[in-house]
Amino acid sequence: MDAMTFVLFGATGDLAKRKIFPALYNLFVDQKLPSSFELVGLGRRQFQESEFQAQVEKSLHSFSRRPVTDPDSVAQFLSMIRYVELNVGEPADYVKLNDRISQREQQLGLPQNRVFYMSVGPELFGPIVSNLKASGLSEVTGWKRLVVEKPFGHDLVTARELNASLSRVFDEHETYRIDHYLGKPMVQNLEVLEYSNPILQALWRNRYVANVQITAAETVGVESRAGYYDHSGALRDMFQNHMLQMLMMLAMQLPKHSTADDVGFKKRKVMESLRALNPEDIAANVVRGQYAAGIMGGQEVVGYKDEPGVAPNSTTDTYIAARLWIDDYFWSEVPFYIRTGKRMKSKTTRIVIEFKDPSDKFTRTNETTTPNLLIIDIGPEAGMTFQINMKNPLTGKLEAVPIHFGSDESNVPEAYEKLIGDMMAGDSTFFAHWDEVELAWQWVEPILQAFEANEVPIHSYPAGSNGPLAAKQLLEADGYHWWLDEELESEQAEAAAPTSPELAVTQA
Amino acid sequence: MDAMTFVLFGATGDLAKRKIFPALYNLFVDQKLPSSFELVGLGRRQFQESEFQAQVEKSLHSFSRRPVTDPDSVAQFLSMIRYVELNVGEPADYVKLNDRISQREQQLGLPQNRVFYMSVGPELFGPIVSNLKASGLSEVTGWKRLVVEKPFGHDLVTARELNASLSRVFDEHETYRIDHYLGKPMVQNLEVLEYSNPILQALWRNRYVANVQITAAETVGVESRAGYYDHSGALRDMFQNHMLQMLMMLAMQLPKHSTADDVGFKKRKVMESLRALNPEDIAANVVRGQYAAGIMGGQEVVGYKDEPGVAPNSTTDTYIAARLWIDDYFWSEVPFYIRTGKRMKSKTTRIVIEFKDPSDKFTRTNETTTPNLLIIDIGPEAGMTFQINMKNPLTGKLEAVPIHFGSDESNVPEAYEKLIGDMMAGDSTFFAHWDEVELAWQWVEPILQAFEANEVPIHSYPAGSNGPLAAKQLLEADGYHWWLDEELESEQAEAAAPTSPELAVTQA
Repeated sequence: MDAMTFVLFGATGDLAKRKIFPALYNLFVDQKLPSSFELVGLGRRQFQESEFQAQVEKSLHSFSRRPVTDPDSVAQFLSMIRYVELNVGEPADYVKLNDRISQREQQLGLPQNRVFYMSVGPELFGPIVSNLKASGLSEVTGWKRLVVEKPFGHDLVTARELNASLSRVFDEHETYRIDHYLGKPMVQNLEVLEYSNPILQALWRNRYVANVQITAAETVGVESRAGYYDHSGALRDMFQNHMLQMLMMLAMQLPKHSTADDVGFKKRKVMESLRALNPEDIAANVVRGQYAAGIMGGQEVVGYKDEPGVAPNSTTDTYIAARLWIDDYFWSEVPFYIRTGKRMKSKTTRIVIEFKDPSDKFTRTNETTTPNLLIIDIGPEAGMTFQINMKNPLTGKLEAVPIHFGSDESNVPEAYEKLIGDMMAGDSTFFAHWDEVELAWQWVEPILQAFEANEVPIHSYPAGSNGPLAAKQLLEADGYHWWLDEELESEQAEAAAPTSPELAVTQA
Repeated sequence: MDAMTFVLFGATGDLAKRKIFPALYNLFVDQKLPSSFELVGLGRRQFQESEFQAQVEKSLHSFSRRPVTDPDSVAQFLSMIRYVELNVGEPADYVKLNDRISQREQQLGLPQNRVFYMSVGPELFGPIVSNLKASGLSEVTGWKRLVVEKPFGHDLVTARELNASLSRVFDEHETYRIDHYLGKPMVQNLEVLEYSNPILQALWRNRYVANVQITAAETVGVESRAGYYDHSGALRDMFQNHMLQMLMMLAMQLPKHSTADDVGFKKRKVMESLRALNPEDIAANVVRGQYAAGIMGGQEVVGYKDEPGVAPNSTTDTYIAARLWIDDYFWSEVPFYIRTGKRMKSKTTRIVIEFKDPSDKFTRTNETTTPNLLIIDIGPEAGMTFQINMKNPLTGKLEAVPIHFGSDESNVPEAYEKLIGDMMAGDSTFFAHWDEVELAWQWVEPILQAFEANEVPIHSYPAGSNGPLAAKQLLEADGYHWWLDEELESEQAEAAAPTSPELAVTQA
């Protein structure tokens, strides 16, 4: 891996503390940092370098996935970390920073490879990048890379403006837009599952798939983020980025051994095939929801409008469900149902692929079989389950049986480790590319406008539920239902009762 | 269920003791016996009825799958059991028996429904059935059924002779040929797996299947059965019946909700499509083996020729492997590899379906993926496993991961319970029908002749191994290998070492 200088804007912020420093430390322990590596943390506050390093060390103890027990390794890691005071609006500070970094590069004989990591509010992305250019920081003899966090724009116009301002300094191939869902192991597996498994490849198409359901449910409410969230909502905060990225990863059809470019190309193809929503179709295909008061884990919780910092008449969506169509050779006629919400019954990110039963119409009796499912659990536990019908040897009746694989993630790299490691290696496969981001905003735009114009009703749902009734009806209209909403309830019931021994799933 | 009299020939024999009485008792406990039921046990020896009942009770304690703890239920079960002394070669004894049964039927107001269960040597099937007719026992006003155990013939000619003699008295639909493999839950599932699971139905054909492997491996040697076995061998004892029945159950394509007749029809279709072996092709497609001395579970065991009762120059096959082709629309060009043997490394009955990888030829790098497998474990543990390729989140490399379902069979009916229960209900779905038996003998016949003429080498294999090298080469010639032979070895190695935690399969 190339030697590099890692310039971190927002080094004293929350994300740096919780994610970036722990990720870098774990990469260091795994010997996945370049042998010549220097991190320059930037912040407005004045710090002694040792003070800042002590703060970083504290964050490792709190947030590293590995227990931090080896003082030597921590000391070695901290020795690579500098702190520089910088006012992001002050051009002179950038010039000083450039001098300092250049000097250091020379002193250490480092090539001029520079990462600029924007762990700051999105309103600062543009100004900082202009200053990088003006100060000469982005004029390098080696390579330069820009890492940006979400949100990438507030709508199509602002996203384009942002991209235009970044791309004056950084090429698309130098720009790494983090979508941390793309760092999750099972999302990364979506890419390979189909092309490396002929039996899935055979089934991965409209001939066999009845519908696809993508759920990202959170149990938390708006927490302390009302200031941001009340102007954003679920559609911007989750749907435009994470949900559509998962859709692309699932629906694209890759050749074996594809490159990052292939992945970008195929993801764009999916977005280009996504049927645009006409304004008059939005109310019938999109469900907007907002949580009301309810009970979670036995405790009463307030409704969204009563959360601190939320406008009492807020129309912000904390839940969104939509029916989407990909009009291409593989997926035409297959509805994709996508939903995400806060204050949902259980925390889960999951894809369910429901298969057709072409022989159902030839059934001579009333006996019906449960559809075959492929369930891909992305979080909090990663796993994969086939739902297959088998004969219960006691009753002779067909029963749906889960065939399950669950992975123990205690040892698995955090999404940020994976993504930062890829970025440092120059691999942009698992980042959001501009084409995708732009097409996603383009698809979302009419919905944003319909929300704005209040043309879509706001359904309230009690905190701790599976979301608004309207989202249930969205699927019922097509003869389907959300899988595992009910099952979760029955699982809880079963936790008390003993499971039927003859069909109990045993450890492999 | 109809009231009936259950006439059991060989009531004091080993099979009755180990299987039939325990099966009937468990059916009784499950309330699956007719409310009016009388069993007449027949034997050569003189017994008081109470003595015989005591002997039956003892067999329940030794062999019932359920612990026998309720004295009332045992007493009630035993009260339905009679004992009658009968010399199978003595016509007068049958007349007496008929009088006795008729009287009893009248006395109890039972309809004349009679089951005749031949738990005796196959040389007695014909003579007994003639006597049933001559004595009037088989002249009933209700229905009559004949149950026969294996072997059904010694070759094609004797099987036809046997069938001719039985069919003079019993129609095919009155004849229940027991193949206890057809009573095993996972074999019964073969019938439904395909038609009740659209995702399997899509894959169940030559377009996706590379090859199919059916293994029935025993760890035992010839035990005390040399007198029978040395004149029979694996081809007759296992292959012609159990192995070909499993092949039929797997390869047939059933409509949803099929009848016993549909099953019989489709099984016959498979046998009719089975490519006949020309004498000159036998040596290249069939491997004959015989176990030599070896080590099993740390203990030295003798070779087959040194077993008590075996001729020292015996050429009897204790192992057989064969390559078969089903020339029909679904399976043409898919080799089926079938093997069975005694004194094998581990006891297992298993079907492995290996899927093709059509994209393998488009691979641009040297990275190869492991084929997808569907593994159906029939015994000793029932289960089903998909082998799927996934990305190891630690290394980023593709790895084959087992997705496994295992059923706990502590509560599952024994094969004999299932089969006897079906027979009493008049359901012949899971019995061997004459067409199948005849076609199976017909297919096997040229091999028997080639063995007889010593045109096929006898490969010896050490007890405790996976069989002769020639059986390995049989698959290698087609570019394949027997799945899970090696894996079993590595599993044993892994039992000592900790498994990689990131891909450990957890309990569902």
